[in-house]
Amino acid sequence: MPTLTIAQIAELAGLESDSHPAKLPRGPLVRRVAAIGDATPDALVFAQDESSLDAAMDSTAGIILAPRKLVTGHAAELPSKQDPRVLAVLDPRYVFALAAKALAPAHEASIHPSASIHPSATLGLRAQIGAQAVVEAGVTLGDDVTLGSGVVLCTGTTLGSRVVVQAGAVLGGTGFGYATHPATGEHVLFPQQGTLVIEDDVEIGANTTIDRGALGETCIGAGTKIDNQVHIGHNCRIGRNVLIAAQAGISGSCTIGDGVVMAGQVGLGDHVTIGPGVILGGASGVFPGKRLEGPGQMFMGVPAEPLKDYLKSIARVRRLK
Amino acid sequence: MPTLTIAQIAELAGLESDSHPAKLPRGPLVRRVAAIGDATPDALVFAQDESSLDAAMDSTAGIILAPRKLVTGHAAELPSKQDPRVLAVLDPRYVFALAAKALAPAHEASIHPSASIHPSATLGLRAQIGAQAVVEAGVTLGDDVTLGSGVVLCTGTTLGSRVVVQAGAVLGGTGFGYATHPATGEHVLFPQQGTLVIEDDVEIGANTTIDRGALGETCIGAGTKIDNQVHIGHNCRIGRNVLIAAQAGISGSCTIGDGVVMAGQVGLGDHVTIGPGVILGGASGVFPGKRLEGPGQMFMGVPAEPLKDYLKSIARVRRLK
Amino acid sequence: MPTLTIAQIAELAGLESDSHPAKLPRGPLVRRVAAIGDATPDALVFAQDESSLDAAMDSTAGIILAPRKLVTGHAAELPSKQDPRVLAVLDPRYVFALAAKALAPAHEASIHPSASIHPSATLGLRAQIGAQAVVEAGVTLGDDVTLGSGVVLCTGTTLGSRVVVQAGAVLGGTGFGYATHPATGEHVLFPQQGTLVIEDDVEIGANTTIDRGALGETCIGAGTKIDNQVHIGHNCRIGRNVLIAAQAGISGSCTIGDGVVMAGQVGLGDHVTIGPGVILGGASGVFPGKRLEGPGQMFMGVPAEPLKDYLKSIARVRRLK
Repeated sequence: MPTLTIAQIAELAGLESDSHPAKLPRGPLVRRVAAIGDATPDALVFAQDESSLDAAMDSTAGIILAPRKLVTGHAAELPSKQDPRVLAVLDPRYVFALAAKALAPAHEASIHPSASIHPSATLGLRAQIGAQAVVEAGVTLGDDVTLGSGVVLCTGTTLGSRVVVQAGAVLGGTGFGYATHPATGEHVLFPQQGTLVIEDDVEIGANTTIDRGALGETCIGAGTKIDNQVHIGHNCRIGRNVLIAAQAGISGSCTIGDGVVMAGQVGLGDHVTIGPGVILGGASGVFPGKRLEGPGQMFMGVPAEPLKDYLKSIARVRRLK
Repeated sequence: MPTLTIAQIAELAGLESDSHPAKLPRGPLVRRVAAIGDATPDALVFAQDESSLDAAMDSTAGIILAPRKLVTGHAAELPSKQDPRVLAVLDPRYVFALAAKALAPAHEASIHPSASIHPSATLGLRAQIGAQAVVEAGVTLGDDVTLGSGVVLCTGTTLGSRVVVQAGAVLGGTGFGYATHPATGEHVLFPQQGTLVIEDDVEIGANTTIDRGALGETCIGAGTKIDNQVHIGHNCRIGRNVLIAAQAGISGSCTIGDGVVMAGQVGLGDHVTIGPGVILGGASGVFPGKRLEGPGQMFMGVPAEPLKDYLKSIARVRRLK
Repeated sequence: MPTLTIAQIAELAGLESDSHPAKLPRGPLVRRVAAIGDATPDALVFAQDESSLDAAMDSTAGIILAPRKLVTGHAAELPSKQDPRVLAVLDPRYVFALAAKALAPAHEASIHPSASIHPSATLGLRAQIGAQAVVEAGVTLGDDVTLGSGVVLCTGTTLGSRVVVQAGAVLGGTGFGYATHPATGEHVLFPQQGTLVIEDDVEIGANTTIDRGALGETCIGAGTKIDNQVHIGHNCRIGRNVLIAAQAGISGSCTIGDGVVMAGQVGLGDHVTIGPGVILGGASGVFPGKRLEGPGQMFMGVPAEPLKDYLKSIARVRRLK
């Protein structure tokens, strides 16, 4: 089991601990992260405001991350003199998450005997594959991949390294594209024989579905995180470090820029383009073929408009102004 | 196979059958519930209006539940004199449901050989576990639990007694919480090591997902019923006897009071509070951090407003007033 | 592996190739469909405009489908004289889809050894059943059915011929219907013992859920195509050749006419009727009990109104007019 000293956590946080080794106490040493209410001497906790900092200092927590602005009377980058367990950092929640990652047990190979892995699939190093999971013919996995129980990776799917797919997600399914007979109304499936590429460090939630390309590729960029029950259609190109919350739906052939944030239940029509860094509020919708741009700009409503305009529209409808 | 006499059904309905045993006919006796169109002499049916009561009396149904207000000229709590098969009750549909429950075969243990149950999981009495279902390490089940085919119970999950989970649902998955590096935009998973507690008599629909807590607990209160494809995020506290219809999405850290009714596709931002007995109309949405209160009060729209106001807003937009 | 000559493709397209055999070149012959960028001499490609037609003619594609209106100076029904590989048709995308179907390998029986099929289930000819799929007791399948990995067919389900069900879909689950005690607020399940009938040529997407009837039947009409993560409640009657895009939700007891098109995230309350040929725009919603009619008429918004009215409403709210 990994452990972390306060000096090592300071280093994770980007504080120059190496240059001030004497100033950092040897102990304490933590083995896990915890909520303040569950703290024990081997636990790291974090505080975000004065009251939680007080609670943390009243607990037996081994190390306490505190916002730098709350820890006065000390060199900002050093633990509090009042309590040697306190490490002041810019963003305690972020450092807490980094520490949790460092404390996690090493990724070790583990393939559940009930999983169904086609002989033609290529697994990377240390694959962790849950019960009843399915890896179909020709699928390729990078290293340190984690597949939850009941995950299905369809033919045509490639996963990068450190990809995590939670239980019940279906990756690489047949897209929804049909050609319709003008007289009879019968629908014929447009060929859906393309591929799905999931790049490194992507994390995908439970029961999410991502379809492979029709003739080309669907691609999810490195570092993108996707919540539960998200749907992504064929031929989409999702950028890097995108966040997509639960039940959002992205129709076919959309392009999503790097760092976009999509809240829950957002809906995009097909061929939509969302520029890098755009933020889409919950349940907002974008009509087919439209383009939204503006890093850091938030859009809301159906059809989505800039937040300021949306608030005006709502106020107008409700006769608040 | 259980059976019910008309006297026993009267008792289920809360009618004082014991005090008037002579007034209640011995027969008939039913073994199943049915639609009027499929009625046979061993079947219980129910009528809600005059035309369905006529149809029921024309059928060969063994026992007929009828609304008390339709059955005149008789002591309200006694079967109709015209047709000894008729039992007059306040709410025929409710009594029909109670009778169907009483007629169901006893819950008997049945674990499909293809299910994957971790040796460290604790099953209660008479567990029914479907094909390909997965019960991960450390999961605990109460008595008389039913897990459908392909259900996944992740580590950290506890189920009460008489809980029913339908096929494909994923309970106890990793929540969607990340801390983001301010410069690189890389997302680090906030630790998701909490628990999920499903209390007694909860029923959960197909392909629904409920995440376990981040550091604490997600809890679904006793008697709550959840439809298909619902998503409930980490750290939510759902009250007792809540109804949540299909495709509703509840973001992390929401608090839902007892007896709340949420229609289909409702969406709640994180840290929302819904007071006891509130009714949320279909596809309505509540912004993060907001609170709605009022037992029996219905809210509609995005952002959700009281029904009366919502109807006014719609009328205003559409120039109807 | 099937092959197609240009004459055979002309025949698929309904061109009278038989009556002009001399006018159609013997070769070339294709074995697969491809995007123009991936074309090889054994591939059929299609062009929809001048630039893609130019690209196609620059490629090594074996046969090129082109819109008739772009291929001038020739008998419309004959290949272009400039390039004997070009076949002019009314709708190249449609003919391309027909050709892809004709080129697909014949449907051959293939049941994955990890699938769980109840001995009382009846499989038709040439069933293809994926890994970890579950076919419960009494289920009946037509011929040439394809079940993806992890599909669950619950008791009470009947599938017609050539039905395709993608990974993770759950068909025939228990519907969401409860009767509530007026004093205690406890919910009792209304009996959900009906059936689900999926007619011929229906295709169903990944992680979609369709509930069986309560006392009666849920029915999906022949030729209907359903995308991923769609929910269809108990007792619905869906017509023929309907298209339902991802994450649409149809509450119980709805009736949907033939040829209806529902875009993504559409939501219908219970007992809604949608007339034949109606088009519902993305994320539109229809209140319980309502009826929308008009073949080819598009509705948008919540509650859904005719497109023309919807656009006026939006313009009014946003002070654009």
